[in-house]
Amino acid sequence: MPEHDRAATPGDGLVARPRQGLTPPPRVRLSVAEYRAELLALVEPDHRSERVALDEAQGRVLAEDVLAATANPAFDNSAMDGYAVRYADVSELPARLQVVGELPAGSSWDPDLGPGECVLIMTAAPLPTRADTVGPLEDTDGGRDWVEVAATPGALGAHVRRSGEDYPAGAVVAVAGTRLAPGSLGAVATAGATAVAARPRPVVAVCATGDELVDDGAELGRGRLHESNSHALAAALRRDGAEVVRGAPLPDDAAALARWLDASAPGADLVLLTGGASVGAHDVVRDLLTARAGGVFRHVMVQPGKPQGWARWAGTPVVALPGNPLSATLCYEVFVRPLLARRLGCPPPASLVAVAASGWSCPPGRAQVVPVVLASAEDGRLLARPAHPRGSASHLASSLASADAIALVGEQVEQVAAGDLLEVQVLA
Amino acid sequence: MPEHDRAATPGDGLVARPRQGLTPPPRVRLSVAEYRAELLALVEPDHRSERVALDEAQGRVLAEDVLAATANPAFDNSAMDGYAVRYADVSELPARLQVVGELPAGSSWDPDLGPGECVLIMTAAPLPTRADTVGPLEDTDGGRDWVEVAATPGALGAHVRRSGEDYPAGAVVAVAGTRLAPGSLGAVATAGATAVAARPRPVVAVCATGDELVDDGAELGRGRLHESNSHALAAALRRDGAEVVRGAPLPDDAAALARWLDASAPGADLVLLTGGASVGAHDVVRDLLTARAGGVFRHVMVQPGKPQGWARWAGTPVVALPGNPLSATLCYEVFVRPLLARRLGCPPPASLVAVAASGWSCPPGRAQVVPVVLASAEDGRLLARPAHPRGSASHLASSLASADAIALVGEQVEQVAAGDLLEVQVLA
Repeated sequence: MPEHDRAATPGDGLVARPRQGLTPPPRVRLSVAEYRAELLALVEPDHRSERVALDEAQGRVLAEDVLAATANPAFDNSAMDGYAVRYADVSELPARLQVVGELPAGSSWDPDLGPGECVLIMTAAPLPTRADTVGPLEDTDGGRDWVEVAATPGALGAHVRRSGEDYPAGAVVAVAGTRLAPGSLGAVATAGATAVAARPRPVVAVCATGDELVDDGAELGRGRLHESNSHALAAALRRDGAEVVRGAPLPDDAAALARWLDASAPGADLVLLTGGASVGAHDVVRDLLTARAGGVFRHVMVQPGKPQGWARWAGTPVVALPGNPLSATLCYEVFVRPLLARRLGCPPPASLVAVAASGWSCPPGRAQVVPVVLASAEDGRLLARPAHPRGSASHLASSLASADAIALVGEQVEQVAAGDLLEVQVLA
Repeated sequence: MPEHDRAATPGDGLVARPRQGLTPPPRVRLSVAEYRAELLALVEPDHRSERVALDEAQGRVLAEDVLAATANPAFDNSAMDGYAVRYADVSELPARLQVVGELPAGSSWDPDLGPGECVLIMTAAPLPTRADTVGPLEDTDGGRDWVEVAATPGALGAHVRRSGEDYPAGAVVAVAGTRLAPGSLGAVATAGATAVAARPRPVVAVCATGDELVDDGAELGRGRLHESNSHALAAALRRDGAEVVRGAPLPDDAAALARWLDASAPGADLVLLTGGASVGAHDVVRDLLTARAGGVFRHVMVQPGKPQGWARWAGTPVVALPGNPLSATLCYEVFVRPLLARRLGCPPPASLVAVAASGWSCPPGRAQVVPVVLASAEDGRLLARPAHPRGSASHLASSLASADAIALVGEQVEQVAAGDLLEVQVLA
């Protein structure tokens, strides 16, 4: 083959390199489940734990169950503004009681009620030991020294929140593996915690490779692409609890890639690369990792993302994702997100069942991952429609701007029809 | 009323204060929609914009539409590894073509193909101007100088990704108001952006009030509660795009509250307080804001969270949420989250339709907000079950640890039955 293709491409970032064969080493074909299992085996759960103050704990994953220091409520208290009474004193009307005190929320006072006596009590204030029922303010004349009770409370113990009604002391209020969100953070604080035992954030180094990549927003020359994978993956990694080291894109040059790996892998729990994983003549990631890092590359029977692989560099797991932006992002969600969940000890990404709002065709013999937008039908069914009007082709990267989930279509499915049931994984 | 309730409560944090009447100023009853509208009027959309690099843009809200600098794909390119050919040369078999060059992804070379010539081309490499079709590698003998084409490509233009098939130059790839997530960040980068115009983060000062609050994890004395509202609300505010200034809890003391407001309100876009908003005799937030900040307090016909209000302190909107942890968090989701969305110019929280997995009773004449856990039925319906086995009572704060959505039940509903349709708002 003539070499003028090189000479004729000044400044296109390509350097002449030894011609390589087109026939790749024979590669095993794996299903999505098989390849996911292979990647999961790359990492072990992290058993380390670090103490994190609540102010820093949002998004962190609990390393241990959080136990309640005290029951909630910690004491019997009033569910209403009203009067703490002895039920026997108000079971027959008319009833007129002496008001011997006032109990605001937060008071530690435990008035010694005698027969015919009551205490004005505010919502959440502790019920006096010698009272047993609360009479709502609106069922009385609101008197302050003496009160007329106009209606007997529904039952002995009415309007009283019992200690432990939410949970007893020692109860688990959040389980190990919980990713702390506003609600769980509030529950943990309510239980008396001021800090939590959290898993360290996995450190992930991510970098895109390819001579075609432009990362400074410059106008694109023929054959060039704006680099987006490192940004999309860095954001997904942070969402999933990782600390990210994002590298500038690398050319298709084995030495440059090796230098970056030498610098990045030792300090990382995981390395993500995109591009160069295919069977072409310039797939440097595949070539370098296969030659120097025990790289294993697969035909995964999925669209998009068929060719990809993994290796270990300086002992650190390296996952080589496809270079196409849509393929890289979708393969992250399907293959890498579960790997981070395993490392952190949290549940794998949840999936839901949705109904296809429209149909599309699927590649024979391959599973398919399709960005979808979710909505509700009037009858409560969850509807999923492809996020891109032109479907799922791997160059339709804009579909990710609007997708809020991905549909996972089995490899035996050749056609999705409107109304079919789909497994969807939410991207949040 | 005797004063010994004060004398008898040394060290409980209460100070004697003038007796106050129990009858609050008459308060207007508002529906959820009416009160939400009243709060929304407190803030104006922020029209300022700041330039944010992509590395810092996750979770930020776009101030402007992002337009594509170039079409995507920017050029016709190959969808396969194979040979770029002129269809006429392979429309009749056998076909044997001379390979005049090799086009890796990223090459800017545009070989001048003559009749009977072809170019070895890699996936995503630019299609030569004088080629019109790609023949997949597997349909050939993979020759490097001469190639035998064993099967005619399906049609003229087969396996070619056309320029602009995803979107044309100038297309909107992400609309103003988008909160940047991994997918939209990737789409924005793919379109050539290296930074975005984002809304400034609203600064929100948040503080819980109440003599009963303990914030150091100390063992609870009678009547005391661990402070959790400021942590739960700070996390929700960050989730919703705010920059949070979290204050330590304040006692039921008007002077202390006024000092904190003087220090916090001027630098904030919004102030959130919890507690002291009810009709009790010690509701300092209500009393101070009403007396000094034009405070407006309402009976909102919702459970939980009936008594709450708003004001302006030094011109800054102040929202006074109920003190009960579950009430505070749920009222944040229903009333405050939409207010932040309005400020940032993003859509209000999305709601879905779900089916009640079990029934529960509702308070007559009041809307109800119930923490729920979502799951899928086999037929694709979204199921919602209450997150707490004991229901929706406002002291069951632990329900927030597991809830992934809230169900919004209308005020006319007196009983939810299994199978009923519910409006749910996802908490993510």
